[in-house]
Order: sequence, then structure tokens, then C-alpha cells
Amino acid sequence: MSNQKILIAGGWRDARNPEGFFHSSNPAEKSELSDSFPISSREEVLEMIQSGKEAAEAMYSIPPEKIADFLEKFASNIEACTDELVEIAHLETALPKETRLRAVELPRTTDQLRQAAVAVRERSWAKATIDTKSNIRAKFGALGGPVVVFGPNNFPYAFNSVSGGDFASAIAAGNPVIAKANPAQVGTTKVLAEAAFEAVKASGLPKAAVQLIYHIKTEVGLMLVSHPDVGATGFTGGRPSGLKLKEAADKAGKPIYLEMSSVNPVFFLSEALNERHKEIATELYASCSLGSGQFCTNPGLVVVENNEAGMDFLNSVTKSFAENEPGTLFSSNGPKNIADAVATLVNAGAEVLLGGKENDGPGYSFQNTLLKVSGDTFLQNSKHLQTEAFGTVTLFVFVNNSDQMKAVAAKLEGNLTGSIYSDRGGEDDQVYKQIEPVLRTKVGRLLNDKMPTSVAVVASMNHGGPYPATGHPGFSAVGIPGSMIRFAALHSYDNVREHRLPVELKNENPTGKMWRLIDGQWSQGNVVVN
Amino acid sequence: MSNQKILIAGGWRDARNPEGFFHSSNPAEKSELSDSFPISSREEVLEMIQSGKEAAEAMYSIPPEKIADFLEKFASNIEACTDELVEIAHLETALPKETRLRAVELPRTTDQLRQAAVAVRERSWAKATIDTKSNIRAKFGALGGPVVVFGPNNFPYAFNSVSGGDFASAIAAGNPVIAKANPAQVGTTKVLAEAAFEAVKASGLPKAAVQLIYHIKTEVGLMLVSHPDVGATGFTGGRPSGLKLKEAADKAGKPIYLEMSSVNPVFFLSEALNERHKEIATELYASCSLGSGQFCTNPGLVVVENNEAGMDFLNSVTKSFAENEPGTLFSSNGPKNIADAVATLVNAGAEVLLGGKENDGPGYSFQNTLLKVSGDTFLQNSKHLQTEAFGTVTLFVFVNNSDQMKAVAAKLEGNLTGSIYSDRGGEDDQVYKQIEPVLRTKVGRLLNDKMPTSVAVVASMNHGGPYPATGHPGFSAVGIPGSMIRFAALHSYDNVREHRLPVELKNENPTGKMWRLIDGQWSQGNVVVN
Repeated sequence: MSNQKILIAGGWRDARNPEGFFHSSNPAEKSELSDSFPISSREEVLEMIQSGKEAAEAMYSIPPEKIADFLEKFASNIEACTDELVEIAHLETALPKETRLRAVELPRTTDQLRQAAVAVRERSWAKATIDTKSNIRAKFGALGGPVVVFGPNNFPYAFNSVSGGDFASAIAAGNPVIAKANPAQVGTTKVLAEAAFEAVKASGLPKAAVQLIYHIKTEVGLMLVSHPDVGATGFTGGRPSGLKLKEAADKAGKPIYLEMSSVNPVFFLSEALNERHKEIATELYASCSLGSGQFCTNPGLVVVENNEAGMDFLNSVTKSFAENEPGTLFSSNGPKNIADAVATLVNAGAEVLLGGKENDGPGYSFQNTLLKVSGDTFLQNSKHLQTEAFGTVTLFVFVNNSDQMKAVAAKLEGNLTGSIYSDRGGEDDQVYKQIEPVLRTKVGRLLNDKMPTSVAVVASMNHGGPYPATGHPGFSAVGIPGSMIRFAALHSYDNVREHRLPVELKNENPTGKMWRLIDGQWSQGNVVVN
Repeated sequence: MSNQKILIAGGWRDARNPEGFFHSSNPAEKSELSDSFPISSREEVLEMIQSGKEAAEAMYSIPPEKIADFLEKFASNIEACTDELVEIAHLETALPKETRLRAVELPRTTDQLRQAAVAVRERSWAKATIDTKSNIRAKFGALGGPVVVFGPNNFPYAFNSVSGGDFASAIAAGNPVIAKANPAQVGTTKVLAEAAFEAVKASGLPKAAVQLIYHIKTEVGLMLVSHPDVGATGFTGGRPSGLKLKEAADKAGKPIYLEMSSVNPVFFLSEALNERHKEIATELYASCSLGSGQFCTNPGLVVVENNEAGMDFLNSVTKSFAENEPGTLFSSNGPKNIADAVATLVNAGAEVLLGGKENDGPGYSFQNTLLKVSGDTFLQNSKHLQTEAFGTVTLFVFVNNSDQMKAVAAKLEGNLTGSIYSDRGGEDDQVYKQIEPVLRTKVGRLLNDKMPTSVAVVASMNHGGPYPATGHPGFSAVGIPGSMIRFAALHSYDNVREHRLPVELKNENPTGKMWRLIDGQWSQGNVVVN
């Protein structure tokens, strides 16, 4: 056992006056890992903020190419320690080494970093807007203070506080990052932070552009996100923690972007089930069990009509859920939290059809679980019947007809996604038209005939949605360059002399490729001043 | 005297069980106007929200051309009642009929509405983003519930809750509006709402697309902005009210955009004062006295070096402030609030050089007021020395040198604007480079050699800035189409069948002019699917 160092103020050092130490665990064996990680004190976090603020000032005047260079070097450094990263992340999360960790999530992570580098070099992300007549020019720019990133427990690389989407977006937008590791993945996070810090030094970024703490007490977290010198916060995690941080940041007028919880409703129209219920049942199980059900976009709520097609579908789904073994959960909290959520659902009127209990075995796990409830009951108790269970747990809502299906949609809270499966030939297009307008305003991403668990890293992705899925319906946590805008401020320049403008707003297009809105037209050309 | 009707649920009617009645006043004569306006009850506001929600659902499926048509008809209706509007607004605000009301603010207001109409027809505002390989498509769309708009007291047309920038932006983005009038301008607001409602009927919008209440109690306002069926809120007004509404909306996860307060610092570098201090003094007084000093962008804080140029400049400014009569303020609160603010500044160490007291005369007014403080004192007590006085009141900060000027900039709260005046020949470019990076992160709009009070309605305008000037540093309240995005949600479509996509996201460009980001390139063309 050794006490691990934190990354602060431009170097690795022992935590000063820590509030204690902790260990991450091996959930497949219900055992503790040997390395010991500090819980940082308020004073240490204050020092970190101060260093982050100074790094933000330094980053204001460095060329974006250095940031792009950092992102690319970091991606290469990650690849260079793939074996180590796969080993430690597998130990800490029990996620399969193949294909999940090595072949899917790690390349996704380096791809995100490289996409961010491309966006930084090309500069269109800043949405430069130039009005020549009034000579007012605007673009998005860095916040002037470090961005705090809280990472979740379900993507050890791709959403990690020191390598994931929020990290890449914040740095690419020109901000230093203060990463707060997920306590369940501190070993993985340490390796990633080492790779990041080597890239910081090699690319010539301010050394405090990346800082890392492993754990802090709640009150220190609240101080951190509301500190006047902090730029903004990105948080991915559970709703209770997210709401506490949101309240503190909101009160201080500090932007905070949260991705908190979602049951990702899937509406199966009867004609689709008549057409292909077995095929869809297979798709549903595959989506529900991905990552042992611990995906933000896991389909936890299924809406079908109470008719023969609906029952046939339920039978097929029950078969898949029953035939397959549940996966390992991330921690001892996993089975407990799922059991609590299932109890809430049952108390609210749902009936357990399958599973419903913690699973015996060497690792933390919970039985594959199916519940059902009538549309009438759902409508009476819709709040509690939307409780998220973070595992392979799905609630079927059996509605009387399409009108009640629409009523169920109207009762939904904000979600990341909403899916509608319908007949390939368009037999139920009228029902689709009934449901879609209601569902549209409840979700960030609307899908047709597709499960929500695949989240492509493309510009048109919305990994966001209305509250309480997130804190604001206008932003996505995934998809470059959109996700970068969260960590930027709108900077307008009125009558500013040309030689003092940022290069993105000078008459000459700085890259020859940057898209700028000049007098209402998007252009890759230079500004022509009459 | 007659009791005025409210506009609710698609028609004008008497308020039901109002909490009381009130009158607006004539500030030039310190007298009450005769019309009596109701304070609406909680039940009435709940009915309004319900009607607004239904209107939002109806607006989801109407063609945007109807919204554009509404905006244009409304602008024409306003022009048709120009005389009546100028008369009543002059009575309620004491703003000059010529040129301010008739020739400046009214045309600005109709221009904003028409710019919004152009944006709606052309559709580029929605930032349609299409990735053909993954077939994911996204755009900004309406929020699914009514937008609440609270209007300020200082622009009876251009920021009015029922005709101003927030109103135009919210409707243009496809949302119904619940307008909450500024109680000081209920007569003006009534005339504007009549013009709006005629346009609603003529253009075929849902009749509850525009609703109007005159006044509500604080707790009803808090309920309104946090109601689950409301889409978002736009607020322009004082900081205490704004912060209360923000807290309620934040807690409910409802977006709220606030424009609250700003002292709009202006930094005068010494070489600029050496070069042209008399000319600049004239500019400063003109800006400080615009609208009797009741502009959001009024320059209330001036920073100069404590040297001969700084003293010469102060003398010139003092002459302008002393020679001119102060204008009329909007209400009896005006002189009282300014006196309070001046007292706060004095208690914090500022010295009154001129004015400082309520002005005698037939109308509400306050003496043109100048104060000064040393840089040392400012740095010691910077919070209180940034108190906004909503009138012709300006605090000079005399700093020891450019380092202290930078230190003052670093202590600034978030502001709408920040200006730097410097030598035309570039003699003090080095000082500019010292100050600018610090000031940049504190303000929404950075100006050179220009006073902040002119707010052009162009795409590159940022009438916004970091907290507490607003609630979020990424949005502008002025400038179409940017201001519309505040009242929109990001809607992503994943694998959605082409005939079900909104027209903005179908393969064919719906207008032939709409800009869309297709596979990373902005284009006005069609999507070519291989």
C-alpha cells in the first residue's frame, strides 16, 4: 500500500493535511484495492483554484495550436499505456477488457480528444460573427477561470474527469481543468492524469492546465463549484449529488452543466410489435444489459398497449432477461441502490415479474429485473414510477390505447432520450403523430426504431435534454464542437482596433477554413471592408 | 377611472378575484394616472400557464411563416398607433417624445420584430446540424411551454414585456409568451398588447400565443417562473427581484435569462486623455445622461490615473455635469434608490464631488452626481464601490499607475460592457495589453474609444455578460438570431424517418437560403445522400 499523490499547481505531490484516505475496490471480487488515495482539504482545493486561475490567465494568450497539440499528445500517451489502463479499469469497474474497454471505450476516448484538437485548430467552434457596417464582432472564448469536472462511475475513460468529453471540451475551449476523480476509479484516473500531465509539459501549456484531486467532502465540493474564480462546472453522476452542486453553483451565478438521470422511455407501437416483436425483444435486452445496465441512456421505461402484441412482446423480453446472467455492478452501492429503486417502483404500484433481488455470487450484482404497471396506475403515480434503477431493470407500462400512450408521454420528466418503434410500412403513422410532439419536448434525442444506448460522437448528437436529465435543455455533453460551447463565454468586440482583435475576428480568415458568419452569411473567406 | 382588462386565454376580460388595483404615475408631475390596473391572483396566473401550455402544443405544428406574419403585422400595428404610444409612454416615463420615443425607440422596436420575422422565415437561427453517415440530425426548437417575460422600466417599447427583444425572441423561436408588464408602464403595455393581439388573430396564431398580466405579488411570480409547464423566463430589471426569480427558477430546473445590473467600467488611459480629454469628457457626459442615466449600459465607473491628465479630465467632466440640468426619473423610487446607492458608495469611502442629492422641481429627479475614490480604497472595498446608481451618477477611481488599473479590473464583478479609451496613435498599446485580458473576462462587450450606451441590434451584439450582470455568460438579450437561442431546446433526431423530420432537417433545404451544418460544412444546399 502506498499513499498516492495529487496533481496540483503544476506538479505531483503528497496531499497536505488530508481529511483522510480511501481505497477503490474490485467489484468482481468484493475486495479493496491496495493503493491509498487522499481526501483533499479545503485549503488544498483553494490552492488548486488559485493555480487554475493563473493558468486560465496564461492560456488567454497562448496560441490554440498548443492546446490542439496537447490534446493529440495526450491521446497518443493514452494509447501508449493501453495495457495498463485496461488492466486497472477492469479491476476497478469489472467492465470486460474485450471488447468494451480496449476496443470500444478507449478508442472512443482518444477519438474525442483528437476531434477536439481538430476543432481547436480549425476554430469554427467559436462561432465568429462579424457585422462589418457596425464593426461589431463576436466569438465564444474561454471563461477566465478553471473548469471543474466531476466524472461518473460508468465510463472510466470516455467520461473520466481527466480524459472524457467534459475534460476535452473544457480544455479545447481554452480553459484549465480541475478534475475531481470518481472515487470508484481513482487508479484509472491517476494513470490518465499522468498521461495528461506529460502531454501538458510536452506541449507547453501552463503546468496547472490540468489538476487532479481524488476525493473531497461534500461541503468542499459546494465551495469549489461556487468559487468566484472558477469558470464553470461539468458534472456527470447521480441526481442527489448533482442537485446539491447545482444549488451551490446557481446561487453563485456559476454555470454548471449536469447530466444526472434518465429512464429513456421507449414507446412500442402495436403494429411494430405485430411485425417483429421477437427481433425487438432481442434489441431491448441487448440495450438494457449493456454495461450491466449502467448506461445513462439505458431504457428503463417501456410503453406498450395492453393487447396481444404487447403480451407477446413481454413474453419474448422476459425470456431474454431470464436466460441471461446479470453483469457485475460497479460497487457495493449498486445492488443497494437498485433494490431501493425497485422498492420505490413497487410501492408506487408496479409488480415485479422477474428478478427484483440482489444476486448471489462473487461480485456485486442484481438480478435482471422486469416490472409492469398499468397505464392508469402510471398516470396516478407518475413521479415515483419514473425512478431510475441503475442496472438491468425495466418497467413495462401497459396502456389501454394510443390516447393513454400520449397521456403517459405527457407525464414524463425530462429525459436524455425517447424512442418510438413503429411499423416499417407506416401502418401506425397516425399514432406516431399523436405521440411524437409530446415526447419531443421531453427528450434531448428522439429515436426511431433504435435503442438509445448508442451515443455517437458527432456534431448533431444531443446527449442532453430537459431537467432533471440535465440542468439546461440547450446543451449537449457529447458531440464536438457543440459540447465546447458550454465552457465558453460570449465575447463581443465593439469598435475594437483590428490589430487588437483575436485572430478569429480579424479581417483575414486565420486558417482559411474557419467558418464565420459575416454579415449574415457563413463564409470561409476574409472580411472585405469597403 | 376604469378598471383595465387583462389578456388571458385568448381574449380580454376583467381580472377574476384580483388581489387589488394600482395606477401608473406621471413622473414629470409626480401625479397618478387615472386608469386602474388589477393585481392578478395565483388562480388567474395558473389559468394563464395552462392556456400557454396549450398554445405551445398548437404552435408546434403551425408553419413558421405564420409566426413571421404575426411579427410583421404586429410591427405595422405598432406603427399605426404611434401617436397613442408616444403619448402614453411619455406620460408614464417622462422620456422625450422627440427624438427618443418616436424617432429612436419605436422604430428600433418595430425593426427588432421585423428582424425576428426575417430570421423565422429564413430559419438559419435553428442551427440545423446534419451528419449523413450516422443519420443524426439536430436543430434548436421550441421549449414546449410558454415563455414568461418580465419587462424593465427603462425602455417602454424596445424591452417591453409584450413587444421588446425578449418577446420577439421567444415568439420567433416558436413559443407563446406570458408577458408580465412593468407596473410603471401598464398604460403603454396595454396599447402594445392590443396591437399584438390583433396581429395574433389576423395571422392565425393560437389566440393564447400572447397573454398579459399587469402585476402579481412576489410569491405568485416565484410560482410562475418555476412552474413545470413553463418553458423559460426572460427578465430585465433590478438585481434584488432578479435574484429572487433566479433562485426559484433554478431550483425547478427552469431556464431563466436575467439582465440585472452593470456599472459598465470605462478605463481612460493617460495618453488618450493627454490627446483629447475635452472631447472625451463631452462623450462621457452624453452617455451618462442618456435617458436620465437610466440605461443598463450607463457608464457608472470610470478609471483614470491620478496624474495631471486625469485631473484635467475630471475638471472637464465636472463642468459638463454641473452645467446641465438632470433629467426626470421614472418614478418616486428613482431618487430614493439613487440616494441609497450614493450613500453606500460614500460609506465605502467615496467622496461626493458634485450633486449627491434629490433635485427640487416638479418631477422626480436627482442631481447630476460625481464621486471619486482612490485606487487603494477601491481595492479595499471593491464590492460596495461597484454599487449601481440608476441615474446620472459616476464614480471616478483614481489609480496610482497602470498596475493598479489592472488590479481594479481584476476586482470587477461581471458587467455588460467594459470600455478602454487609448491614444489614437497607439502610444499606450502596452498598457492596453495589460488591462484588456483582465477586463475581457469580466464583460460581455468590450469597446474601444466608444461609450457603451449604444446597443446595436446586430448578430454580433452581446447585451449580456458574466454574473451578476446576467445569469449566464453565454447568451445575449439583444441581437437576432442569437437572442432566440435562449428560448429554444436542442432537439436531436436519431435515425428518424425522413418524412417525419421537421422541414429544417429534411434532405431538401426548405428555403434554399437556410444555412445548415452538413457534415461539418455550412451549406445552403440540399443534403446529398449516397
